[in-house]
Amino acid sequence: MTQQSVLVVGTGLIGTSIAIGLVAKDFDVYLSDADAVAAQAAADKSGAHLWDGQQQVDVVIVATPPAATAQVLSEMLTIHPNAVVTDVSSVKGSIFSSITNLDADKAERLIGSHPMAGREISGVAGAQSNLFVDRPWVITPTVQSSDKAHTAITNIALALGAVPIDRSISAHDRAVALISHTPQVVASVLARQLQDATQDDVDLAGQGIRDTIRLAGSNPELWKQILVGNSIEVTARLKQVAHDLLDFAGVIEAKNDDAIDALMRKGNVGRDRLPGKHGSGAKDSATLTVRVEDKPGELARLFAVAAASQVNLEDVRIDHSLGRMTGLVELSVSPISSQTLIDALVAAEFVVVQ
Amino acid sequence: MTQQSVLVVGTGLIGTSIAIGLVAKDFDVYLSDADAVAAQAAADKSGAHLWDGQQQVDVVIVATPPAATAQVLSEMLTIHPNAVVTDVSSVKGSIFSSITNLDADKAERLIGSHPMAGREISGVAGAQSNLFVDRPWVITPTVQSSDKAHTAITNIALALGAVPIDRSISAHDRAVALISHTPQVVASVLARQLQDATQDDVDLAGQGIRDTIRLAGSNPELWKQILVGNSIEVTARLKQVAHDLLDFAGVIEAKNDDAIDALMRKGNVGRDRLPGKHGSGAKDSATLTVRVEDKPGELARLFAVAAASQVNLEDVRIDHSLGRMTGLVELSVSPISSQTLIDALVAAEFVVVQ
Repeated sequence: MTQQSVLVVGTGLIGTSIAIGLVAKDFDVYLSDADAVAAQAAADKSGAHLWDGQQQVDVVIVATPPAATAQVLSEMLTIHPNAVVTDVSSVKGSIFSSITNLDADKAERLIGSHPMAGREISGVAGAQSNLFVDRPWVITPTVQSSDKAHTAITNIALALGAVPIDRSISAHDRAVALISHTPQVVASVLARQLQDATQDDVDLAGQGIRDTIRLAGSNPELWKQILVGNSIEVTARLKQVAHDLLDFAGVIEAKNDDAIDALMRKGNVGRDRLPGKHGSGAKDSATLTVRVEDKPGELARLFAVAAASQVNLEDVRIDHSLGRMTGLVELSVSPISSQTLIDALVAAEFVVVQ
Repeated sequence: MTQQSVLVVGTGLIGTSIAIGLVAKDFDVYLSDADAVAAQAAADKSGAHLWDGQQQVDVVIVATPPAATAQVLSEMLTIHPNAVVTDVSSVKGSIFSSITNLDADKAERLIGSHPMAGREISGVAGAQSNLFVDRPWVITPTVQSSDKAHTAITNIALALGAVPIDRSISAHDRAVALISHTPQVVASVLARQLQDATQDDVDLAGQGIRDTIRLAGSNPELWKQILVGNSIEVTARLKQVAHDLLDFAGVIEAKNDDAIDALMRKGNVGRDRLPGKHGSGAKDSATLTVRVEDKPGELARLFAVAAASQVNLEDVRIDHSLGRMTGLVELSVSPISSQTLIDALVAAEFVVVQ
């Protein structure tokens, strides 16, 4: 079957990654961007065509910054009178509620979507086709969106290896406030506490705070648009978190052991709801910790030894501390394999103790 | 030189790990615990002796839960009249301020310490000698602590591979409130938000929130003692965080782009103060993302291929999503080596795109 033609508007990280992935799946892909240099770079990287201003396409994917998305969606519905038109924004309600007075034809062709993927390297430089592999790709139909529109976007998500998930616009915005936007703000606020800390204090920081504030490295330019776009859901949740923090501070101040215990356990329960290996299933594995020296090839040598031992590594985690290049590598294996791996590592002169 | 004799009181994760490590370094190690079964398990695992109730030692390390620490320190100063006596607690001020009216001899032999290490598997089961390798081991002398006491604890920290760092008691408590205790409470409070969330919302959770709430898996029993023990510093910081969150919520509610941008940037600056690879230096590497299937040996096969390519892996990160066992593995390498590794991985039929 001949794949559809797709125009990607906006050649940042997400748009360019979509283009690379769809070109690889034989879609006929066109690119446009307000910045002609960025568009050319994305075309070079993806092998997609630059849009010539005339070409009609089957699907338009608007991957502009959130603040521009509503307007570009409206324009694309007019410029491409036969195309299904979608976006990739992290917010939905504020964008779709601002697109009003569409005639029925346009309304049927419009559908929201949100591939839940990203990375710390933004723009064309960070783009890669497998950005979406195994990631949720939320599709948010409006009441008027056609089945054809839904099928077109579902197929694109599947072509990129993502997992299409339908949600209403309001359910999407509520969910991302909880699992993405609020953690972002909390991480930023916690990281901010380090700004004026003494170097002596910062020097004691370990992996715990590092994980907790990892998101604080995010791009302010993008995030201010996301947070404004989902302001009602996000501010409600942030106020709840602040309230819960003050509650927690209150029981610590009162030295109320039972209440602290209860609040810690609520955190345990919430964390255990997350799926995956680092969630509640983590204790089924044995974890070996190996010290890896700061010299070229040591990490590769470690994995070569592990591979040669024929033990199945279930997980790997590298823990950096004290700002050194030295790492402590945690290898998770089935408990029954653990001694085999220890023996192999010790024979290769790695420092490891279970 | 003959190594010193050391009594470890309390055979949980930290105490047993110390015992294992010191036995390996030829210290003469004795163990005691209120729970005789736990003490025996720790002796079996470490090769240390059970304390017979008579043996005099050079150093006593009190590794009991924080709430019991002050009393046990006092007792040990009496029972072992020649020993240097230290603890390993995460809090210092509340413990040391409650040990009063010591005569000069005892006061000279008492010194605080805090090895900043831990893991999710508690108790004897989690104990391992290299728990302290490359970790800060904070030493908090009182004004009366002798040089002999300082030297003894420094030597033990060094023997265990840790990095001894001197701090005053107040500086220690302020630092750990900032970089350990506050992140713990923030993670617990954020995780708690998931407790009543719908499954539909939780299903969209990705690596971002997973990292942010990792600490929420911590042990309530231990943490209630830590938080009570450092209540003044922790509650002050938690109130600051809550205040900053409400501030942030306010500028989002007001849709004040510039103010949101400024607050995001404060988070960027704070995060960049953390040392190590995942801090500001992260962009010097090229990162490849590889999809690893859920079948035995795939992760090992990946590392075998990487090892055979002779490319130096600088970092490895595994990203679990959607609750599958499938992982996306990020391999960081020098930009110049990236193509070599890509070629090797593709030749081995891994899905990888930079």
